[in-house]
Amino acid sequence: MTTITAVTAHDVRFPTSLSMDGSDAMNKDGDYSAAYVVIHTDDPELSGYGFTFTIGRGNDLCVEAARQRGLPLVGRSVEDAVADLGGVYRELSSDSQLRWLGPEKGVVHLAMAAVMNAMWDLAARVAGKPLWRLLAEMTPEQLVDAADLRYLSDALTREEAIAILAEKMPTRAQRIAELDAQGGYPCYTTSAGWLGYSDEKLRRLLQEAVDEGYQHVKLKVGADLDDDIRRLRIAREVIGWDAKLMIDANQVWDVPQAIDWVGRLAEFEPMWIEEPTSPDDVLGHAAIRRAVAPIGVATGEHGMNRVLFKQMFQAEAIDYCQLDSARLASVNEILSVYLMAHKFGVPVCPHAGGVGLCELVQHLSIFDYVCVSGTLENRVTEFVDHLHEHFVDPCIVENGHYVLPQQPGYSAQMHDASLAEYTFPGGSYWTGR
Amino acid sequence: MTTITAVTAHDVRFPTSLSMDGSDAMNKDGDYSAAYVVIHTDDPELSGYGFTFTIGRGNDLCVEAARQRGLPLVGRSVEDAVADLGGVYRELSSDSQLRWLGPEKGVVHLAMAAVMNAMWDLAARVAGKPLWRLLAEMTPEQLVDAADLRYLSDALTREEAIAILAEKMPTRAQRIAELDAQGGYPCYTTSAGWLGYSDEKLRRLLQEAVDEGYQHVKLKVGADLDDDIRRLRIAREVIGWDAKLMIDANQVWDVPQAIDWVGRLAEFEPMWIEEPTSPDDVLGHAAIRRAVAPIGVATGEHGMNRVLFKQMFQAEAIDYCQLDSARLASVNEILSVYLMAHKFGVPVCPHAGGVGLCELVQHLSIFDYVCVSGTLENRVTEFVDHLHEHFVDPCIVENGHYVLPQQPGYSAQMHDASLAEYTFPGGSYWTGR
Repeated sequence: MTTITAVTAHDVRFPTSLSMDGSDAMNKDGDYSAAYVVIHTDDPELSGYGFTFTIGRGNDLCVEAARQRGLPLVGRSVEDAVADLGGVYRELSSDSQLRWLGPEKGVVHLAMAAVMNAMWDLAARVAGKPLWRLLAEMTPEQLVDAADLRYLSDALTREEAIAILAEKMPTRAQRIAELDAQGGYPCYTTSAGWLGYSDEKLRRLLQEAVDEGYQHVKLKVGADLDDDIRRLRIAREVIGWDAKLMIDANQVWDVPQAIDWVGRLAEFEPMWIEEPTSPDDVLGHAAIRRAVAPIGVATGEHGMNRVLFKQMFQAEAIDYCQLDSARLASVNEILSVYLMAHKFGVPVCPHAGGVGLCELVQHLSIFDYVCVSGTLENRVTEFVDHLHEHFVDPCIVENGHYVLPQQPGYSAQMHDASLAEYTFPGGSYWTGR
Repeated sequence: MTTITAVTAHDVRFPTSLSMDGSDAMNKDGDYSAAYVVIHTDDPELSGYGFTFTIGRGNDLCVEAARQRGLPLVGRSVEDAVADLGGVYRELSSDSQLRWLGPEKGVVHLAMAAVMNAMWDLAARVAGKPLWRLLAEMTPEQLVDAADLRYLSDALTREEAIAILAEKMPTRAQRIAELDAQGGYPCYTTSAGWLGYSDEKLRRLLQEAVDEGYQHVKLKVGADLDDDIRRLRIAREVIGWDAKLMIDANQVWDVPQAIDWVGRLAEFEPMWIEEPTSPDDVLGHAAIRRAVAPIGVATGEHGMNRVLFKQMFQAEAIDYCQLDSARLASVNEILSVYLMAHKFGVPVCPHAGGVGLCELVQHLSIFDYVCVSGTLENRVTEFVDHLHEHFVDPCIVENGHYVLPQQPGYSAQMHDASLAEYTFPGGSYWTGR
């Protein structure tokens, strides 16, 4: 028997604001950060790694919240815990005093994501498999036992959830083979399109994206209409009209303003407008979607929990679901969103980028194709080429595809040297400034 | 000129779990707590006091978040700040790194409430007036300048907001006189109805409520249907059928379960069912409301921000809006919710209880009657008789009415002796356990 001996949480911050990487109309100067969790065991070869993602100040709040969330795990049997990840999740999330601070949103929920991401990483390491394969070898009942279906029964019952998974069960292996044969799961790049980049840098990065095989690119918009028109014109000049172009406003507009502004950009034929307004505004997204069709509406990186996504689906508010692997409470809650998305016919194109989000979402997208959706139509997962060098098992992207990860775990472990350098405020980078 | 010299935040916790005060179907053992903020100035006679409310663990997260939120205030002119509380609010809330942790929800938003509550308290003290009177002497334009209307323009424009306030402006003084003459603003009591109380204690407390002049009482439900039926029967035996009875499930049900369970309690003719399901579920509340009419649906104490309330109004999801004075980001955001509620014809019956929430909401309810709604119809504000002894200017409730507060400020200051005793973990109560 192996025992969990400690759960530690670490404040890791990268100075991305210096290069304007990640700059958009709402977030001008983020320092990409992780509240990084390690579940230690009495087996020196076995730990679980997970994190949530923030953009700087307040990362310490998530670190402390994760430390508190993780306390009930100490002293438990690893074997028991990984055999009942639904039970672990329900126990941690039932702390009513911490629940009051959300419920199920904000700092306490981000912390829940970090801790449960580390638990799923631990479970995959114990199994000796990459997370996507661990999930692909679970039965429909096991997956649904792990899922958080609370508050969802008016949209998705347990029986429906099992039926969705059971339908795809016999053909899972076939789809794994297909993904392998085609070089992985398709992705798009946001690396070119940050607002803080010059026109020249934008043109160069777009050309590089085309040369690397990307069929989809995304640009940030929403700070200045004339700038947006000029930058989108550059984008179409470089990528042509066959490739897909997405635009992302990062929540800067009110609903009427979103409808007006997107209308002014329609000539560039964007595939979707992402985060046109407050991420909490289900009815607002529905109104925008009706007004800007055939341009799609996408949101989800700030989608706080499964109850929000349930309503996005019920209200037919979005064309693309961009769930976030470090904002939703790990696989337990993400499973429910995938299952609802399938029932309501909405493709899931997960948010990524930040610190390590690409490492996580590759597993989720593969799982979705293999076990839930069974299709790649209208599906493409974000990729941003930042900060992968800090991960022990970084994602591998070739020809616009995430190559299927093979190492055990959720690809969430960071290098010790990165922690030593970028831990805030005591790491060598920050003390040296 | 007076200058803000420091903003301090304090972790204050009361051991309410020992007496089961505050026990309900979701929150079985809360220790009522405040993340308490003091804005210090270089005038030793002048400080501002505010807080947010939590139920124990994690209060420290709000304290630290409030400390970080308050940092930009240090060094400012008090006179400039209180003359532009909308500007102060927008500046503090525009910190994009902290915004990522919500946005506008959870711990960072609770902290914003605490800091801005202290700013409004400071402003009222500078003016030498209770907060409700400060608000009642502001012009419609001044009030709307202070309000946060972002993301609301599809439901309420600035022009509509001003028009609502302007319509009631000429008759404000008349309504203040009316409230004074009738003994204050009407309230109801939850003190009797906690789940953890015995039938005998329930009966005794209900009789006391009737004797004290209350026309409305509220009981917690949702843990066990047979218990609920027995307790509601006791309630009707004691209060009769003319008094109003409200029931509160504290979010324990899924939507179909809520409809079923409330149907089983309909014979007791509740005026409203409060928090029947997830507080985030706008469409779920709308479905419940359609199904349980004529029983009303009420929610709001966990209503995270104005965007949620906007949708509750747009979707006709609630009959009663129970905004929370320490969860919404103080008067700036609360103004917007009151104005939307008025436009959509939904009465606001604020949540109170906890630590100091009664002290705050009395000001808001008076303001609503005087400046926004102009009516008391279907309006009643919560009162819970706990923990008032810790406040320097506690609310005064007589004959089921909040007596109009007269002291300058937002009634938010706690006694130094209470802080010394209940500061966690260093106060004398906690070190003595």
